[in-house]
This record gives sequence, C-alpha cells and structure tokens, in this order.
Amino acid sequence: MRDWLIHIKRGEYASLQTQIREALVSAILDRQLDQQEPIPSTRKMAKSLGVSRNTVVLAYQGLLDDGYLLAKQRSGYFVSDKALEDHMPKARKAASPEKPKGTGLNWERLVNKHPSHQPNTVKVRNWQDFAYPFIYGQVDHTLFPLAEWRDCTRQALGKKWLGDWTNDFTNEDDPLLVEQIRRRILPRRGIMAHDDEILVTLGAQNAIYLITSLLVNQDTRVVMEEPGYPDMRNIFQLRSQNVGLAPVDQSGLMLGPELDNAQIVYTTPSHQFPTTVTMPLERRMALLKKASEKNFIVVEDDYEFETNYVNEPCPALKSLDDDGRVIYVGSLSKTLFPGLRLGFMVAPKALIAEARALRRLMVRHAPSNNQRTAALFLSLGHHDALIRKLHKAYRTRWEIMGAALSKHLPSSARNPSFGGTSYWVKGPAKLDADALSQAATAKGVLINPGRICFGAAQAPRNYFRLAFSSIDEKKIEPGIKLLSELIKQPS
Amino acid sequence: MRDWLIHIKRGEYASLQTQIREALVSAILDRQLDQQEPIPSTRKMAKSLGVSRNTVVLAYQGLLDDGYLLAKQRSGYFVSDKALEDHMPKARKAASPEKPKGTGLNWERLVNKHPSHQPNTVKVRNWQDFAYPFIYGQVDHTLFPLAEWRDCTRQALGKKWLGDWTNDFTNEDDPLLVEQIRRRILPRRGIMAHDDEILVTLGAQNAIYLITSLLVNQDTRVVMEEPGYPDMRNIFQLRSQNVGLAPVDQSGLMLGPELDNAQIVYTTPSHQFPTTVTMPLERRMALLKKASEKNFIVVEDDYEFETNYVNEPCPALKSLDDDGRVIYVGSLSKTLFPGLRLGFMVAPKALIAEARALRRLMVRHAPSNNQRTAALFLSLGHHDALIRKLHKAYRTRWEIMGAALSKHLPSSARNPSFGGTSYWVKGPAKLDADALSQAATAKGVLINPGRICFGAAQAPRNYFRLAFSSIDEKKIEPGIKLLSELIKQPS
Repeated sequence: MRDWLIHIKRGEYASLQTQIREALVSAILDRQLDQQEPIPSTRKMAKSLGVSRNTVVLAYQGLLDDGYLLAKQRSGYFVSDKALEDHMPKARKAASPEKPKGTGLNWERLVNKHPSHQPNTVKVRNWQDFAYPFIYGQVDHTLFPLAEWRDCTRQALGKKWLGDWTNDFTNEDDPLLVEQIRRRILPRRGIMAHDDEILVTLGAQNAIYLITSLLVNQDTRVVMEEPGYPDMRNIFQLRSQNVGLAPVDQSGLMLGPELDNAQIVYTTPSHQFPTTVTMPLERRMALLKKASEKNFIVVEDDYEFETNYVNEPCPALKSLDDDGRVIYVGSLSKTLFPGLRLGFMVAPKALIAEARALRRLMVRHAPSNNQRTAALFLSLGHHDALIRKLHKAYRTRWEIMGAALSKHLPSSARNPSFGGTSYWVKGPAKLDADALSQAATAKGVLINPGRICFGAAQAPRNYFRLAFSSIDEKKIEPGIKLLSELIKQPS
Repeated sequence: MRDWLIHIKRGEYASLQTQIREALVSAILDRQLDQQEPIPSTRKMAKSLGVSRNTVVLAYQGLLDDGYLLAKQRSGYFVSDKALEDHMPKARKAASPEKPKGTGLNWERLVNKHPSHQPNTVKVRNWQDFAYPFIYGQVDHTLFPLAEWRDCTRQALGKKWLGDWTNDFTNEDDPLLVEQIRRRILPRRGIMAHDDEILVTLGAQNAIYLITSLLVNQDTRVVMEEPGYPDMRNIFQLRSQNVGLAPVDQSGLMLGPELDNAQIVYTTPSHQFPTTVTMPLERRMALLKKASEKNFIVVEDDYEFETNYVNEPCPALKSLDDDGRVIYVGSLSKTLFPGLRLGFMVAPKALIAEARALRRLMVRHAPSNNQRTAALFLSLGHHDALIRKLHKAYRTRWEIMGAALSKHLPSSARNPSFGGTSYWVKGPAKLDADALSQAATAKGVLINPGRICFGAAQAPRNYFRLAFSSIDEKKIEPGIKLLSELIKQPS
C-alpha cells in the first residue's frame, strides 16, 4: 500500500470517514491510482490507518454508490472507468499549462476604470492570531450563537423547503425574510414599510452600489461626510467627477454650503463612520428640511445596529422622512456575520423596482439558502436575543475602553461617543498612524489607521480607529497600554 | 388562555418546540401579551396544544435563557421588560405608517437607467405545481443530492472553521474553493489556470456584469449572438449604444462582418443559448483567429456544464487561447442549485485584479459559508458524482424528448442538438409562441417562448424552448402531446 495516499488526522475538521473519502477521490481524479490494481482491502486500510474497519467500509460504500469504485468478486475494489472517463476531456492535452497567457493585451488600458488603484482599508485576514485585535467588522466568536445558527441552517435545508432554497428567484426575495425585516428590524428604527419598499441586498455594500448605479452620473453632485466611509467614496468616484466632502462635527454631518448644490447626500447618522458621533434629533430634522429646500436625496447608511449606551437610540432619518427622499440602507452583517453578506434597502416603491431589476442583472439575488436561514433566525427571536447580548457585551467594553484611553492616552482626543463598536482617536499632532499601525502589528496590536477615511489630499495622519467588537474585554487595557508606549516612543 | 396565541401543525417544516418558540416570540415582540399576567404554565400549555410537557418546558427554557421570559417564584412565567424595552424605540410613534411616501419625487426621472423596462424572461415561481414544467434553470429535486449537501453544510459550519466562514473576506475568496475550481472544474474544460486568474462570483450573471462594467463604455462595440441570452443583451444595452447582433447557424456564432469592428464578442460555444448548438473545433479556431486579427476580446459563457450525448465534449475556447484574449465564465448553479448563486471567471491576472476590486465595491464576495460548503462538496467528489448522475438522466430525457418531438411535432424544426438541457423548437410560421405559452400554462404545460431571445425589433414569434432539466421523464411525452394539440388548434 502506497502510504502517500492517505494521511488522516484525528481531531481534524472532518470525520475520519470524510477524510478517507476526500483522499481517495482526490487520488482517483488526479489519476494517481493504477486502474489495474485493486485498492487496499477495507481490513488492510483500516489497519494501516489505525481506524476501525467500519469507518473504512462506510467510506468505500459511499464511493461505490457514487461510481468511483467498482467491486469485483474475489479481487477487491478497483477504480471505475466511468469515474475517469468523463473527468478529463482529451482537450486537456491541447492546453499549455505553464505558458503565461494574456501578456499580449494591455489590460491596464483596456479597462475603463481601475478600482484596484483606489486606496482602501486593508484588512488582516488572520486577525485571530493577534493578541490585541482592535479591528473593525469581524465577528467575535465568543458572542456568536453558533448552535442557534446551525439549527436554523438545518431546518432551512429541510426537504419541505427544498423548492424554496434551491430555486432561482430571478428578481424576487424570500418572502419570509422580507416579512422579518419589515416586522422585526425596521420597527426598531421607527420605520414602517411595505414589502415592495424593501429590497434584500448582498450586504449594505451592495445596496449603496445599486443606489449609486441608478442615481449617479458623471456630473451628479454627490456629497459625503469627511472623514467618511472609504468604500462609499470609491464607489462615488468611479462614477462621478463631482464628489463633495462635507465636514463632520460632534453632531455628525454639518449642513454647510457643500450641500447646497447636492443631488445626493450620503450620511451615517446612527454612528458616523468613522467618528462614531450620533446625529441628534435636531440635526436630523434640519438635514431633512435642507433636503426638501435644496431638493436632494439622502442615503442613510445605518450600517451598524443602533446602540446607545447612555440614552435612547435616536429614530432613523427614514422614519422622519415625509417626502420619501430618504433611502435607508441596513445590514445584517454586523449582528449575524459579515461573511453572510446580507443587507437591505428601504426606499419608495418606484426606486425599489429599478434596483430590483438592476440587481437581477448584477447578481440576481442573495443566495436563497442564506435568506431562508436568516429568516428563521429572526423569526425564532435569536436575532433580538443576540442584539441584547451584543449590546451588553459592547457596553462593558466601551466603558473599559473609555477608562483605558483616559488613563494611558490622556493627551489624545476623542469625539463624544455614546454607541457603536469603536473609538475614533486623534493622536498627538506629529503622530503618523500608518507607521504606528505597522509598529503595533509587530507587537500583536491591530488598529485601523484613519487616513484612509479622508478624501482630501491633505489629510491628517494622526487619527486612528480602535474597535472593540472583536476583542476580549480583558485584552483591552493591556492593548491600549502597549499602544500608548509605542506612541510615546520617539520615532 | 387565549387560543389565538399558538397554532401548531404536526408534520410542519419545524419541530413542535420550534413552532411554540416562534409563536411566543412573535406575540411578545408584537406586544400581544399582557406583561402583568403570567403566560400559561407548561402543564396547561402542553395540555391545550396536545403536546408533551417536555416539549413546552424546553421551549420555555430557551426563552428564559434568551431573556424573553422571566420566571417568578410561585407566580409563573412573565414577559420580560428587557425583551420589550429595546425593541421598539419611542420613535415608532413618530412614524405615520399608512401615509404613502415618496410620491413627491419623480423617481422615473431621477434614475439614470430603467432596467425594469427591459424585456426579460419571466419565470414562474411555483413551477412545481405544474404537471409539465418544460422550464429552464431550476433544480430537479429528484436528482439533487440533498443528504450530501446537508452533510457538507454541517461540516462547513463546524467550530474549527468558524473563523473562515464568519469573516468578511473583503476582496478575497475561499482558497479551498478556488483550489477546487482550479483542480476539479477547469481541467474538465481543458483549462489550466493559476489562482490569481480565477475569481469567484455571485453566479455567472455576476461575472458578465463585472466584465461589462470594466470593459464596456457608451461607444464600445459589443457583439453577441442572435438569438442570444437576454440578460446579457440587457446588461450590454444599459451601457453601450453600439450593441451588434451576429446570426447563429448550426455551428453557433457566425463569423460574419458584424464582428469586424467588434471590441468585445460574447458567445456561448458549449451549448449556444438558446439554440443549444455546439460550436465545433474548426469554428472555435476560426473565431480565435479572427479575434487575433481584428483584436477583439472574447467572453466565453460556459453557463452549463459541458454535455455531449453523442461525442466527446469540445474543449473550451479558453483552453485554445494563446493570446489571453478569452475571458471564461462558468457556473456552479446548473449542477448545484441556482439559488446558491456561485459562479466564477477565468481571465488574465491583470483583469482579475480589477474585477476583484470592483467586486469588493459591488458585493465584497460570495457568502463565505456557501463558498466553504461548495468547496467541501467538490473535494469529497460529490460534484463529480452529481455530474455523472445528471448526464445519465439528461441523456435519457434528451432521447425521449427527441422521439416525442419527432412523433408529435413532425412539422417543427430543430437545430441539431447533442447536449445541453433543452431543445429549441421552431414552430409553424404562423405560430405565436407567447400565445401558445399562455394557453399551455392553462393546461399545466410550462414552456419558454423564444421571442425574448431575439434582439432585433422584427423578431420571429414562432420559436420556443423546451427544457428537460426539471421535468420527470414520464411527463415528457404526454406534455409534448398536449402541446402539439394546442399548436394544431386553429387560433
């Protein structure tokens, strides 16, 4: 028996039976097995791997059922012709694997835009390997209700609903999810909507992309907050030459002259991105008044579920909007998990109809299995329970973080923050937060430098963001202490 | 006890315990329960619903754990203040639910494109309720390996991989899925590619949308097949004023003068959409030669896994492309299920980098839980086994269908079709296939009228498509008989 064939690991992600199957399928399809020779008997294989014979018998049986193996009387198990026959067409030989292709065309010139040239936040993929991850937008596994999510997945994949989750919905959404958004999520924000005013999107990101595609031309005057959400700025700049930046104060977006000629204004009132300041009710009313007077559309990105650790949360702009000029964008990624890519938008019916038709061409719809699972998760109250749990955990971290910042970085400034999942910190004037981030990473401290959030060419370099949604509360104080030492070091 | 509160159904999708939880959560969050009054005891509830007391105890326990209920000594279970407190902000009262909003703005004029005005295939959502569904692009549940898919889902959601599937990948893909596409799927088509030449997309649809966004301007000369894929035509027409249509013969796309000034040519060589004709090797070579001479880019949409019931499948254009001017688009939707929305594109590295950056802004990435599940499904050989199973089942249906068409519709014409999952039928000259489709629907026969596949204003009305991917083989002959009777009826 060729011992290169199968390596199994106990305690690995998959069962032993699964590992045996995977290794054999791989060897068969890669033609590493001689078809003339039987593969090892179940007894031999079991012995060689040190697993129970039943495990091997079950793995072999699955491969027989699926046509990978043939059992020949008295001679044992062989690789089936059928498995190989239709796997590799003869054409394969025609391909020249290692010859570099596409070097002849100048793709740099052929494409009409270069999104890859746009600066944007760089996320560290293996953030879990760092001791002090003050990073934003990933899931804290200690808070995620894995068992409940798995249970909903199991139920959603049930035979009774097979037709619902396997089908191409074309341009529709799962009616159960739309209902849950309408009944459970929007009322939290004071928003009442009909089903045809709601569109499920591939995350909030997809909603703002759809809105921009429909409403922004080359000359459209769009205005966003400065500092603001880099992805939004990138999307706007891919389409319009006329992107305005309006400053932010302690009440969020300022209603200055930048907005006067605006056709679209993008804002994040709940927790301004990245400063986390909350727009108070008076500013909200004033913004809506100005929108009416100057006749612009407001895109309200409520990317994070509302949290206010001090007062009642403020109602969404959309709930105060009598003109129907606010387009509301929400996300399920911050409560469920960002990898799920589920968000939604609420807007007048006529706009939703166009966004739905455009979404059909762009992606058709969010995967139907995930829509159904999320609908179940909401309908069973797991989502509301999760929000309560997150609110409690985040509030504690927010307090610990506030205290640690006051203690270790007393010279830094912070906006008054009553919610959200991060602090926006202004370091000493001479600080280069990009350099700080690099030095901190080497010490196991992950932070988000703030410069990327500014659209102006002459952006300050001394801001950074410390998020507390993914870091254990016990790590907060030591992490900030480490950071303060790095800041104090002469550079 | 208010008996409106809970209705449970035995044999319903969810367990009894789940149904009890769902009903109680719903009543609590909708404030239908009096907080001063205890909810019925577990004993009473069990008796009233006719279920075991344990079932109710477990449901109540879950609600206690999640803070929906409070247990008070000697008085029973009450709705918790906490559950209600943060659910409905006071702002709700500010909203005026029934007042129609957004009627003030003219959205029809505000949007810069009107995808909702574009004609497109209309899919029947409840196709399973029809006796003879000759429809395209849905899953035949009798062929889908549900148990294997569920098993892969269960494994993918395991704790060990939690970090992989919950995280925001930003612009990356699941490396396990990319590996499987590279090792298992592309070699079937004769294509060798590096990881940085592969991008996972939200279905093939998303790939063609990304390609168009990057390569097509208002004046770009794009050429596609006539008849052809309506979604592609719609995407092209949203961007370019210069969409050319090139006729199709029995070898697929014809290489006539329409292609001479083309910058982008879109084609479906495996099974031309909708005629299902396969482009033979000579035509493929000639197309690539012309592409080199005229310097255009070829988008090869291999939307359906290659099937040829008579000969060996032909290698993909991409596998024959030495210039790197072919962009290959593939789908997992036709073998797995369309609701999953997973596809991919293969192109030179420089283009993939731009497409990846654009995808980040558009949707970020395909949901990570689905990527991991699909990767497992592929690596365990379930996908290859499924393809073998589908090939066998489709071949049988293709033969039955061919015989039934010859018998019942001898006067109709068909392209020589050696693969795919449908027949493209040319009815009598005077036939109006839209009217036929309507009449047929009333008799339980679903067909796809063909007019939508033509871009020309004066399109023939007598074509229709009969797909056999979702219909039981026993239903084929009687369905075609019914259809032939409708065609023969004087209209």
